[in-house]
Amino acid sequence: MKAEEGITILKIGGSVITDKSSDDGSAKLDEIERIAAEISRFSGRLIIVHGAGSFGHPQAKRYALTEKFDAKGAIITHDSVKNLNRFVVNSLNKAGLNSVPVHPIGNTVCENGRIVRMFIEGIRIMLKNGFVPVLHGDVVMDTVLGISILSGDQIVPFLAMQLGAERIGIGSAKDGVLDNEGKTIETITSSNFRDIEKYIGASENTDVTGGMFGKVDELLKLCEISSITSYIFNASKNGNVLKFLNGENIGTAINNTGK
Amino acid sequence: MKAEEGITILKIGGSVITDKSSDDGSAKLDEIERIAAEISRFSGRLIIVHGAGSFGHPQAKRYALTEKFDAKGAIITHDSVKNLNRFVVNSLNKAGLNSVPVHPIGNTVCENGRIVRMFIEGIRIMLKNGFVPVLHGDVVMDTVLGISILSGDQIVPFLAMQLGAERIGIGSAKDGVLDNEGKTIETITSSNFRDIEKYIGASENTDVTGGMFGKVDELLKLCEISSITSYIFNASKNGNVLKFLNGENIGTAINNTGK
Repeated sequence: MKAEEGITILKIGGSVITDKSSDDGSAKLDEIERIAAEISRFSGRLIIVHGAGSFGHPQAKRYALTEKFDAKGAIITHDSVKNLNRFVVNSLNKAGLNSVPVHPIGNTVCENGRIVRMFIEGIRIMLKNGFVPVLHGDVVMDTVLGISILSGDQIVPFLAMQLGAERIGIGSAKDGVLDNEGKTIETITSSNFRDIEKYIGASENTDVTGGMFGKVDELLKLCEISSITSYIFNASKNGNVLKFLNGENIGTAINNTGK
Repeated sequence: MKAEEGITILKIGGSVITDKSSDDGSAKLDEIERIAAEISRFSGRLIIVHGAGSFGHPQAKRYALTEKFDAKGAIITHDSVKNLNRFVVNSLNKAGLNSVPVHPIGNTVCENGRIVRMFIEGIRIMLKNGFVPVLHGDVVMDTVLGISILSGDQIVPFLAMQLGAERIGIGSAKDGVLDNEGKTIETITSSNFRDIEKYIGASENTDVTGGMFGKVDELLKLCEISSITSYIFNASKNGNVLKFLNGENIGTAINNTGK
């Protein structure tokens, strides 16, 4: 690992590592281990952010956390996604990485659901020392709402801006962003987004944080203020995570150049 | 709970809630539940900090974390104390509190083993909304050393200063600070500390963070810059935690007035 090299941020969607149709925390342990093995073959500076899937969305819905403050519901939802995080971190460490769990409930504050502060300094030192910080969608403290639901899809571009990340990969359960014929759209920019946004739905089942539309929207916002290209690709396909980490441009690219 | 009322910080020593003679994580679950029940009868604004006991000290020693950087050792030690934190948080929540785990590894940075930054804003919002943040001794990122061992005894005065806490209680396994005849010293100030420091030993067994001397030293440093009085008392004695929370002055008082 070179100290001066760029930072890669990899999101692993909740639909990839959990059964999202489940009412309560059902992890795809084989998939978590397969992805951990792919990641372990990458030696660059890396941050992992994972979604909550059935370890967060059903709980947040049950307690209507996007509508009202509920302390018990917040605690139960956080505890559930923390269990998923434990599976991910343990698998990564068994695969040979030095990954460290970083829970947004303790290091991030939102205002009306948008991140206003995150404790980045610890993450910088982790990266400098060869650790792989692993964050996740979580319940976080909110200056206005008391608590809010923070999607991993919002964490990724925020970290990318703060740390000047070089590559962003969003590993989803689809081949990328699909058009009306189910074909992967090659590139999305703010210019063509209006034409294709009608094809882009929310995730199936119980996603409380905006699904595919939310992902593209967050990444386009990032493009407005940086020149980074993000890739939305299929992390459920064997080998794709490593392909992305090794520099291949797979799935749908999201940038402000259209290339 | 009144929004404007003062903040209490309660430390529960690792010797109270774990078997410190054990080589590896042995929790005193009955004690954790008894203390959780006492705490649940208190309705003020409260932060809990617990020690690591056999969930941290033997691991930190095994990997010589106070002497050298060891990524794997740091991860194993953090994971162990996190298991103890889960017992504490779950017991508090079963007893009716809304407690939230806050792990220093993700929200605190040290420089040569002393805290230089902690993400306090989330803790403030937790307190405002009736949550009880639960922190603990942990492995944390260090600007100089890469990682360092952060004692709960250092977290307590740091939080007290940042938040302007009203009361500090250090629940240990002894009746307070004991003199050479085993009698509890009533009050320690910077003036009489020199006379009695020879009686004050490190904790028994495997404490890597300074034991009783470390506790008194940290609290005296706090007295130099604030007027707060801290109490070191026996949390292993039934009812003492609630007595402290209810405003009784028990054990050894540490302050800068000598009263």
